[in-house]
Formats: sequence, structure tokens, C-alpha cells
Amino acid sequence: MGLPKFVNIKEVGPREGMQFEKGPISTADKIRLVDMLSDCNFKQIEVTSFVSPKWVPQMADADEVTRAYKRRPGTEYNCIFLNAKGLERAVAHGKFDMRGTLWATASDTFSKKNTNRSIEETYVDLAERIGLFKSFNIPVERIGVMAAFGCNFEGDIDQQHVVEMVARLIDIAQRQDVNITSIALADTMGWATPLTMRRMLGSLRDRWPEKRINLHLHDTRGLGLSNAFAAMEMGVDDFDAAVGGLGGCPYGGFKGAAGNISSEDLVHMCHELGIETGVDLDRLIETAREAETIVGHPLPGKLIQGTPLKAYRRTLAA
Amino acid sequence: MGLPKFVNIKEVGPREGMQFEKGPISTADKIRLVDMLSDCNFKQIEVTSFVSPKWVPQMADADEVTRAYKRRPGTEYNCIFLNAKGLERAVAHGKFDMRGTLWATASDTFSKKNTNRSIEETYVDLAERIGLFKSFNIPVERIGVMAAFGCNFEGDIDQQHVVEMVARLIDIAQRQDVNITSIALADTMGWATPLTMRRMLGSLRDRWPEKRINLHLHDTRGLGLSNAFAAMEMGVDDFDAAVGGLGGCPYGGFKGAAGNISSEDLVHMCHELGIETGVDLDRLIETAREAETIVGHPLPGKLIQGTPLKAYRRTLAA
Repeated sequence: MGLPKFVNIKEVGPREGMQFEKGPISTADKIRLVDMLSDCNFKQIEVTSFVSPKWVPQMADADEVTRAYKRRPGTEYNCIFLNAKGLERAVAHGKFDMRGTLWATASDTFSKKNTNRSIEETYVDLAERIGLFKSFNIPVERIGVMAAFGCNFEGDIDQQHVVEMVARLIDIAQRQDVNITSIALADTMGWATPLTMRRMLGSLRDRWPEKRINLHLHDTRGLGLSNAFAAMEMGVDDFDAAVGGLGGCPYGGFKGAAGNISSEDLVHMCHELGIETGVDLDRLIETAREAETIVGHPLPGKLIQGTPLKAYRRTLAA
Repeated sequence: MGLPKFVNIKEVGPREGMQFEKGPISTADKIRLVDMLSDCNFKQIEVTSFVSPKWVPQMADADEVTRAYKRRPGTEYNCIFLNAKGLERAVAHGKFDMRGTLWATASDTFSKKNTNRSIEETYVDLAERIGLFKSFNIPVERIGVMAAFGCNFEGDIDQQHVVEMVARLIDIAQRQDVNITSIALADTMGWATPLTMRRMLGSLRDRWPEKRINLHLHDTRGLGLSNAFAAMEMGVDDFDAAVGGLGGCPYGGFKGAAGNISSEDLVHMCHELGIETGVDLDRLIETAREAETIVGHPLPGKLIQGTPLKAYRRTLAA
């Protein structure tokens, strides 16, 4: 298909990155990080998560962070919520661009461990969830499958199983007159390779050629950018990423946790491939360095130390 | 062309990795690292460098390391030397599988900075060097181009320039009846992308379809494995890599230095793609962890923390 001209990157560091951090991080630092990321011109930023502080202590200040961060025109601000209570909290602020995604998990074992629900139970919940979204006038345009490429508890995930799940999720939405235009796949535990990525995307494209695909990739085994590149060549133009590669850092005691692909490394790759992102890379690298200071340990993003190639070209041209 | 069935990986950590390390590393640790790497079944290991300790203090114990490491049948042991004196030292040990490569650097500026010779002066030197190799009965089968994809001092390197250099180097060899069968390209400062990699390899393949290509990649901006995968799809089956990603670590104060691609991450990628390497991945990951202990700072290789997928499959199958 050839590479896309523009790739959208949703910055998820403030939410997914922070929730992995074990050390104390001040509310002021969290707010500052969101505002710095806004200044990088991301089109989407995932700010926080409205979940019980019993489960995710790092998100106990979600309301304070939400009240204080500054909305930048041109950026869409998202958040996570797991139930009606979380959704109500998020909506009450009036500061989020609320979007509903219907998520299920391809591994039944992981689904039960992570959400206390089997895949089949998730389908039932989602039918109700659509009603909840509707009652708040939240648009639902996307379905998503977590652990879509493999699972540490179940091993490799069969691609046909994922295709059938996507079909089922689209069908659940359609039964309530909800039209799904986008399919999200999360490689939650870092199992994808460029080959499985291509096969999976090929299967989805064959069946739903008109639907946009979003990828949420983890760099657990170093294949994050390789997988992103393989996907871009299949026309995928929508990715999640986290500044600095936040979200499970091998050097911070989060052993075994899988970090997101680094936003700045992804942006750099895109720009070097001639793909626009709209993101200010220089500011983003500064922000990644600041994120390292905020969390208090090294982050895996390569551009934190490596100079972007554009900077050399600029110097040479001067 | 499709992926190769087998990829050869030359482990260069003990040489290229160690020479970047600023802290003291005991000779015993260097020897132990080579022996541990031998136990991983690499087909080639670059043990050390016979250079002046004035220039590379970390290699002052090259003779002691050479005397003590154990040769494993089935592994070829290589070393680096920059002049006749170094070559004589290396040969005297009788423990190396000596091979001559005719290297030049695509960036004239970097060539002068790194070797005190322009590209044209290098060509003259190489004509003499072939005589030196011949006088020691060292086979010369390979030419090589450093900084083949870009240079921090000159920017992007023109691909036609590299093709012309390869032609010139092959010609210099042929004039002395030396038949070159292999072309090495080093992305010394981490400028390659999967797209420039494909274009470069395409140009070389068009002109020299029968020559084997070797790649020496650095992961400065996170594209090392993406470039390796792109190259494998063009049929490249010969790579250098360093255990743990030794060779310029962003966390050890070697700011701006470019680490080699990590051997264990490369081996893992190959195995996940169905490509054999002959390398024992479990032992290699143990060795990478030991390398981290030896150098005394975190190394960037992902598998040091992330568990290989095969291990999950093994557990699940049990």
C-alpha cells in the first residue's frame, strides 16, 4: 500500500506511563508533563485514568490533574474509565473529548486476570456499555482487541480468533445501531513480529478494507518500531505511544512489564521516512528528558540520548 | 527475496563493546565474557583489538585476553588491528582466524577524523595493506564501507557514492589478484532507515548479485532491528551485533555514542521469524546480564529484562 503521508500519534504517557510508576510523582509534575506534551502539538493526549485508587494508586489525583491541565486548541484530550462511576467523574469535568471504544481481550485467561471477566462475559458487558455511552451522548466509533498478538498466559493468539472477535464486536455495536469505523489492536504483552503484524493486518484489511486501524504497541522485546514500520507499510496511520517509552521500564524495578513504544523514537522514524506527524520533535525530546527527571529513573527511548538526524542536517546546512 | 533460513551473527561485544567503556574492567572479566559467549555457540566472536593503549586504553590487555580465552571448536575468533605492528601481535598468538577486510569510510571528514586519512589516501594505503595480508598468508575476501548511510559530520551519504566506493575497493583488490566475495557496510553513526537500507542493498545487489553482504548496525535512534529486518528481507544473512547492546550506552555517560544492535534481541527476532542462528538464546541472555554486571551500568538490550517468547511457550506446553 505504501507509507501514509501523515501518521497520527496519540500520546499515552501521562496515563499508561504513569500508572506503572511505583515511586511518588507529584500532581504538579503530572500536570506539567501533560502541558509540555500539549506544547509538542500532539493531536491526541491521554491525560489520566478514572479508576479506583485502591487498584491504581498513581491515579488517585486524576481529578486534580484534570482540573489543572491546560487544553490546547487542536489537541484532543482523552481519558480512561472502567465503569459508570469513572465515566461520570470524567464527564463532569467537561474537559475531555469523550470517545467510547468497545474493548475485549483475545486471551480468555488474561481477560479474567485483568478484568475479572471472560471474553463471553465481556461481550455481555459491552452491550450494556453502549447504552451507558449513549446516555452520556459519547460517540462510539471503535472496537478494540487487547493481547491481539500473544499472551504470556496463553501463548500465541490465533489470528482467526482475533478476526472473529472483531466481527463479533462490530456486530454487538450494530445491533444497537452503532457504526464502527475503526479497529484498535493492542500488543499488550509484546508478542508481535513484523511478519505476524502483516498477516494480522492483511486479514483485517481483507474483511474490512474501509475501517481505520489503530495500533497500541509495546517494545518488550525490541520489535516495537519494526512492527510499527511493517504496519505503516500496510497503510496504518494511527498509533499510541508514550513519551520516553514510559509504561514499564526495565531499569525502574518494573521487571517484566512492557514499555510502550517511545513517542519521540516513533516521531523520529516517521519524519526520517518522510511521514508527517505534526509533532514538534525537538520539544518532544526535551519533554522525554523531563519525563525521565520526573519519574527519577532512566527511560528506554533512544532519542533521549541520541541526537535526531534532522539536527545534524540543520547544523550542516547552517 | 524472502527471509534467509540461517543468519550468521558475529558477536563483537568483547571488542567493540569494551573499547567504549570508560570504567576499569578487569582482564579476568574480559576473558570470562569471551568464554561465556563461546558457550552461546556463536560462529564468530571478535575478541579484542590490537591497537595502541595510548588510543584505546581499554585494549591494553589484548595480549593477556588473547592468551587466556578458550577456543571452542566451531567458533571462529577474530580481532582488530590497524597497522602492521598490531597485525604482527595478533598473528604471533596463533589463536585467531585471521581475515583481511579492506575498509574505507564513505565520509571524507569522518575518515580524516577517525583514521587521519582521506578517502583517496585510504585507497593508497589499502593497496599496500593487501601486500601485508599476503605476506602473512591472511585471506582477503571482503571490502567494507564505514559510515555508509550517513555521517554526523557530513549528513546523508549519497548511495551512488557508496556504490562507486565499493567498485573502487573491489578494483583495488582485483589489481592484486584478490577476489572479493563479500561487501560489509557499517552504519557507524546510526543513520539508516528501513527505506534507505532497502535502496542501498538494491543498488549493491543489482551490480554484484553474487556477493554476500555483511551489516554492522548501530541502534542510536532505535531503528537497528527495523533495519536488520529490512535487510533480511533483501536476503542479507550476515550481521555484527554486541551482547547487551554494548558499545556506547546512553546510561553510562557515553553521551552521543552509538550502541551496537543487541545480539540477544537480534537472535530473538530471528528465532521468532523462523530463522535459525545456531545461538543458544537462553545462555546469551544470561551472558548479557553478566555483561551488565561487568560494565557496572544498565545495557540497552531489551531481552535483559523481557522474557523471550519461547520461554512462555515452553512453560505453557509443560
